[in-house]
Amino acid sequence: MLNEGTIIAKGTASGSAAISIIRLSGIDSIDMVSNCFKAESGKILAKQKSHTVHFGTLYDKKRAIDEVLISLFIAPKSYTGENVVEISCHGSIYIQQEIFQLFIRHGANPAKPGEFTLRAFLNKKIDLIQAEAVADLIACESEAAHQVALDQMRGGYTQQIALMRQKLIDFASLITLELDFSDEDLAFADRKSLDLLIDELTEKIKSLIDSFQYGSAVKQGIPAVITGKPNAGKSSLLNTLLNEDRAIVSEIPGTTRDTIEDIVNIEGLQFRFIDTAGLRETNDNIEYIGVEKAKEKVKKARILIYMFDRNDVTIEEILMTIKDFERDSLITILVENKIDLRKNSEVSKFDIELTKKIKNYSIADFIKISTFDNESVNRLKRSLCNQFQGNNPTGDVIVTNVRHLHSLQKSLKSIKNIKNGLKDNLSGDLLSVDINEALNYLGEISGEITNDELLGNIFSKFCIGK
Amino acid sequence: MLNEGTIIAKGTASGSAAISIIRLSGIDSIDMVSNCFKAESGKILAKQKSHTVHFGTLYDKKRAIDEVLISLFIAPKSYTGENVVEISCHGSIYIQQEIFQLFIRHGANPAKPGEFTLRAFLNKKIDLIQAEAVADLIACESEAAHQVALDQMRGGYTQQIALMRQKLIDFASLITLELDFSDEDLAFADRKSLDLLIDELTEKIKSLIDSFQYGSAVKQGIPAVITGKPNAGKSSLLNTLLNEDRAIVSEIPGTTRDTIEDIVNIEGLQFRFIDTAGLRETNDNIEYIGVEKAKEKVKKARILIYMFDRNDVTIEEILMTIKDFERDSLITILVENKIDLRKNSEVSKFDIELTKKIKNYSIADFIKISTFDNESVNRLKRSLCNQFQGNNPTGDVIVTNVRHLHSLQKSLKSIKNIKNGLKDNLSGDLLSVDINEALNYLGEISGEITNDELLGNIFSKFCIGK
Repeated sequence: MLNEGTIIAKGTASGSAAISIIRLSGIDSIDMVSNCFKAESGKILAKQKSHTVHFGTLYDKKRAIDEVLISLFIAPKSYTGENVVEISCHGSIYIQQEIFQLFIRHGANPAKPGEFTLRAFLNKKIDLIQAEAVADLIACESEAAHQVALDQMRGGYTQQIALMRQKLIDFASLITLELDFSDEDLAFADRKSLDLLIDELTEKIKSLIDSFQYGSAVKQGIPAVITGKPNAGKSSLLNTLLNEDRAIVSEIPGTTRDTIEDIVNIEGLQFRFIDTAGLRETNDNIEYIGVEKAKEKVKKARILIYMFDRNDVTIEEILMTIKDFERDSLITILVENKIDLRKNSEVSKFDIELTKKIKNYSIADFIKISTFDNESVNRLKRSLCNQFQGNNPTGDVIVTNVRHLHSLQKSLKSIKNIKNGLKDNLSGDLLSVDINEALNYLGEISGEITNDELLGNIFSKFCIGK
Repeated sequence: MLNEGTIIAKGTASGSAAISIIRLSGIDSIDMVSNCFKAESGKILAKQKSHTVHFGTLYDKKRAIDEVLISLFIAPKSYTGENVVEISCHGSIYIQQEIFQLFIRHGANPAKPGEFTLRAFLNKKIDLIQAEAVADLIACESEAAHQVALDQMRGGYTQQIALMRQKLIDFASLITLELDFSDEDLAFADRKSLDLLIDELTEKIKSLIDSFQYGSAVKQGIPAVITGKPNAGKSSLLNTLLNEDRAIVSEIPGTTRDTIEDIVNIEGLQFRFIDTAGLRETNDNIEYIGVEKAKEKVKKARILIYMFDRNDVTIEEILMTIKDFERDSLITILVENKIDLRKNSEVSKFDIELTKKIKNYSIADFIKISTFDNESVNRLKRSLCNQFQGNNPTGDVIVTNVRHLHSLQKSLKSIKNIKNGLKDNLSGDLLSVDINEALNYLGEISGEITNDELLGNIFSKFCIGK
């Protein structure tokens, strides 16, 4: 999957702009550009130092293509670890294409998606966690997602995995030593310490796995489904949250049938709000499908906003629906709408009874709003954010990548096998099979263990030019 | 219209990508970035040399925003002539905004459209012709437009204007000398040489004015109207030229009513083809408007492609239409369509008569095609290009800018006044009024004479970040 030689790609977004960057990486990149470049200073580009910038003109034979700035990065002091040249040209699409084609004619190959970062990985400038974090960083749209990606790119995560692997490797080598001296029935590897280590690793890996739920929510937007009976004001709430008329709103129950999704940033966290068809028995076929879809959405949600209008619901209905949807990872927020229609001081039997009964259900918050009153909706927003403040289970380290999750799950299984093996007094050679398996799975995460297929999968998802 | 202090803008196109550039210009720019930046090498950014690149992390107080490359350009060795910093960050929209906002908080001002280039002009790094060429260069979409813009940016044009002005200034100072010694009735300025100079300038300015017709066509795409009777195959030709089904084609005469325009690059020249309603008397109201629109389009065209089907037209009809549209700057190409329907060797009375009669009309070419036969359409394409090969009236210098055209036209008028003044033996002080006027108009072009309104007009059309 790797190009030979020097690769080239546009590095900046397409479209016309003040500046565009075209970058080359590979052993010939500097000479290639130097041959087509006349510096204003008269200096020879190929003889300049790393990390310097040079103004001049790019030529295709005698035809001037553009006045450009050239930045040089000499191996290994570059992103890829190879010679890298960045050409900063005028941001005309025509000029970008001319420059790209010029160097294709001079022997450069168009870079495949993520190939610059792949080369950085293969040249050991970064590990796989960092490489994947680069793609996340480019895609990030909220402060929380940005922070997680940046931390990972800067290697915080990598160290923890490396530490775990190192401890296992140390044990594995002691066990290997035992096997070498197997005739003498010596036990170099203290089974008790191994057992303690396994407990420590189990806890660590579990907490990494747990962090994924938060991590993936942060990365993709926390899915928050708005549900309730028809006409509770769900679409109005969506519109108020989005600050635009996204969903059609009417007095007629059953107006919303398709699920409508949109993203809102609240205090640096990204929520994906999903408005759904009101829950009711219906003979309308399309509405029926809508209700089923709504239920599906709740199953995949992280947050359930159950909305009601007290004039159109019984407490039993509320509690039944909440009970129906209840599951461990679901955060349920109860929202009473249309409080603007009530008298100020009204504290009714309804309030007393509801407050009492919901204590038996896992309800994160109960908020009264009117979708016409921004201040009340802001209270809901703050409540949503509060659910995720300090909700990061492993401190600094958060898993956001499904691939990592799977490797962690597999390594956890191997670790459990080791634990059981120790309990059953298995011999060193049998234990070492599981230890190696755990080492492999952990190694896959940071890329110490890898193969072409794995790399292909990872980097094909990158954008071209990175 | 100029910001005080340091300005900041995104330099690259928006959208997520591998890299984005944010640039700052102004006396504080380097210190501003240095205060938020920790170089990997530990070096202090503000102490580094011009034209160097530094890898490190941007911080908002203690929060890391991104790992970036910083390029330094120390005044006056920069685009604007001021201290310039370019920040190359990960191409996430979120990160770009964070960095932008960071430096706004540190006192930078958002750059207005074209403000970087305006500063370059005010700091005498470039003149107005070059500044305007920068915007043209970014917008260019064809080889010809690119070449013209690049030549102008590199100053070819500027010199000619400067030379003309210098010669006039020399004369003006001689005349001033005369006025100082007016009591003694001396003539330092040789009227004969002035007359010769005026002739030379007249010729030069005229040829610049003439070049505009080519220049503006090249810049905006050469407008080529396809006209003819209904059902001649005009829309089919447009589709074949565009290589897509752009216009609706049917057997029914009068299918096209709206004018349909699209751009095609042929051998580096950009043509704007305009398909129009077929010319005929019609009672259909919409079609009638279409026919009127077609006639309007021909009036503004540079090329007229008159298409006909010999089975549906008389030679008189062809010639009459051509005569109707004839004007100096219009290049008419006669295109017979549907030759696939004719027998190979057929040379009819029609051919002989048409060939004979069109000799009295200014027809640039006569080409027989079938819109189904690409080779025949390619012959038409080559013919179109041939009309513009070597059709650049002033050699290297081409005026593409309407503002320049107007200044040239006004200076030509002043030059003519000088000529007449010489003929009428006007005194030096009267002559010098016209000379100064001519100098002003010429000076406006390159920006030696300027004012805020003029600059405002020019730079407000730039994109932000340039």
